[in-house]
Amino acid sequence: MDWESFYDTHPSPSNYESIITAVENFVCSHENEKMVLITSGGTTVPIEQNTVRFVDNFSLGTRGSASAEYFLDAGYVVIFLYRSNSLEPFVRHFNNSLLDKLEIVDDKSIQVKQSEFDTLYPILKKYKDAKNANRILTVPFTTLIEYMWLLRGSCMLMDTKYSLLYLAAAVSDFYIPPSEMAEHKVQSNDGPPMIALRLVPKVLYAVTHIWAPNAYIISFKLETDYGILEQKSKGALIKYKHQLVIGNLLHTRKRNVKLIGQDGVIEDILLTDEDIKNGIEIEDLIVSNVKAKHDQFFKSQK
Amino acid sequence: MDWESFYDTHPSPSNYESIITAVENFVCSHENEKMVLITSGGTTVPIEQNTVRFVDNFSLGTRGSASAEYFLDAGYVVIFLYRSNSLEPFVRHFNNSLLDKLEIVDDKSIQVKQSEFDTLYPILKKYKDAKNANRILTVPFTTLIEYMWLLRGSCMLMDTKYSLLYLAAAVSDFYIPPSEMAEHKVQSNDGPPMIALRLVPKVLYAVTHIWAPNAYIISFKLETDYGILEQKSKGALIKYKHQLVIGNLLHTRKRNVKLIGQDGVIEDILLTDEDIKNGIEIEDLIVSNVKAKHDQFFKSQK
Repeated sequence: MDWESFYDTHPSPSNYESIITAVENFVCSHENEKMVLITSGGTTVPIEQNTVRFVDNFSLGTRGSASAEYFLDAGYVVIFLYRSNSLEPFVRHFNNSLLDKLEIVDDKSIQVKQSEFDTLYPILKKYKDAKNANRILTVPFTTLIEYMWLLRGSCMLMDTKYSLLYLAAAVSDFYIPPSEMAEHKVQSNDGPPMIALRLVPKVLYAVTHIWAPNAYIISFKLETDYGILEQKSKGALIKYKHQLVIGNLLHTRKRNVKLIGQDGVIEDILLTDEDIKNGIEIEDLIVSNVKAKHDQFFKSQK
Repeated sequence: MDWESFYDTHPSPSNYESIITAVENFVCSHENEKMVLITSGGTTVPIEQNTVRFVDNFSLGTRGSASAEYFLDAGYVVIFLYRSNSLEPFVRHFNNSLLDKLEIVDDKSIQVKQSEFDTLYPILKKYKDAKNANRILTVPFTTLIEYMWLLRGSCMLMDTKYSLLYLAAAVSDFYIPPSEMAEHKVQSNDGPPMIALRLVPKVLYAVTHIWAPNAYIISFKLETDYGILEQKSKGALIKYKHQLVIGNLLHTRKRNVKLIGQDGVIEDILLTDEDIKNGIEIEDLIVSNVKAKHDQFFKSQK
């Protein structure tokens, strides 16, 4: 199925108009500023119309949420299109054992323990500053269909050389058409089901050629087998003609990514053990590199 | 496949021994106290051995995490066996817009806004008290296999009349055997895959007859179709001979549950609009009801 019929047969989510209006207002209030759309987290593909079960894609949203912070540091305004309950920028640092970081003072106030202050203060400060200056907009989604609609709507509002599209979400390649979905929870006493999946149309072609041809566009590729990572990344650049693929392997993705450009050159970004010990995140290096490339692209456009 | 061969063919998770030792120490330190094992959240069923995709069961963990708080209030010690990243007792109240609840004071400390204090203080106080008195143990899992092993291990340590098993997790009915799983990420250019699922063996029989026949055991049933809820609940009680099924429908589960006992009597627990407006949670009523039933059961045992 091509992408046009996909959108024709999958109506927009009920709250679509209000979300896209918020995105539009955000974009308008930052005209002529560098802006990044970050997609983050997995997408769910329901198995039943009254959904109890779904197929999901593994992603905690680490890459997207960390990158959002570094893009803000680098002067970008950020639209963060993320899977509900996946990691969010800034919030991610507070999630683990949150309540153990809080303490009650004299039964009169609750505060972050002083031992945590030095770590959390700069993060909270940046969050408050970004929020107060309206420099970040967070937009949650859950299902593949919601993602598809919000991606299209956002891209179409960002078709300028100021825009960077950083498509880091782990989007399902497969879905079940509503017409083939069971209405109610599939019953186990009917025996084990076969789930017949359909291919999700590749919308990257529409992003690069129709929705946002003027933006700088980065797609991501996650594989588990090194043998096909390079070949698939180069194949995508030939097919979609966007600017960059960031490729990584499931098991080394936190310390090694490969930036594959249209000229076929592969740049390696690699964290050393020392870097990791010092708390350096690979997204810091990725964003610096990407910003430099976007700057160059920006200058070359009329 | 029966449950014995399921365990034979799916080895225990690598950290199993250390987790079960922690559970054992916890159980031993609360001898002759009423104890509840709460299972909560969904389970994942990987599609690939190097997992990028999985089948999941819808559950935020609301029922389990809220119930844990009310069981502590009711004097139980709690083992909370929950899906990673699903809701946790106490923490759940802080999750939404957490950072907006915090403020920086004079660049010297971070505190919960005074306007949030009255709501959050009693929750944090109960959390700290439960933790300090070692009255709650939280044990995370992700996959169906981890859940199956941890359930069996925990039940076998809790085979006394002091134990309540409150099996609220949304456990997958289906799985893919490792021998039939692709090693690497399934490629979309091979065409859309068919996923052939197998039935997960019903371990409730083993729980009630072998692992913890002396405990008070409650299973949960979630359906989307009212027509089969009552019939399936009664069927389960006949088959497994446990004490209670708590049944609910997907779309009304936060305001209505049905308690179905071995005598076939169905009790309705229903929140009014007024209750909901006043912030009453249905788990508060469920736990009071269940505690009374467990008390009665407890007295009737030698």
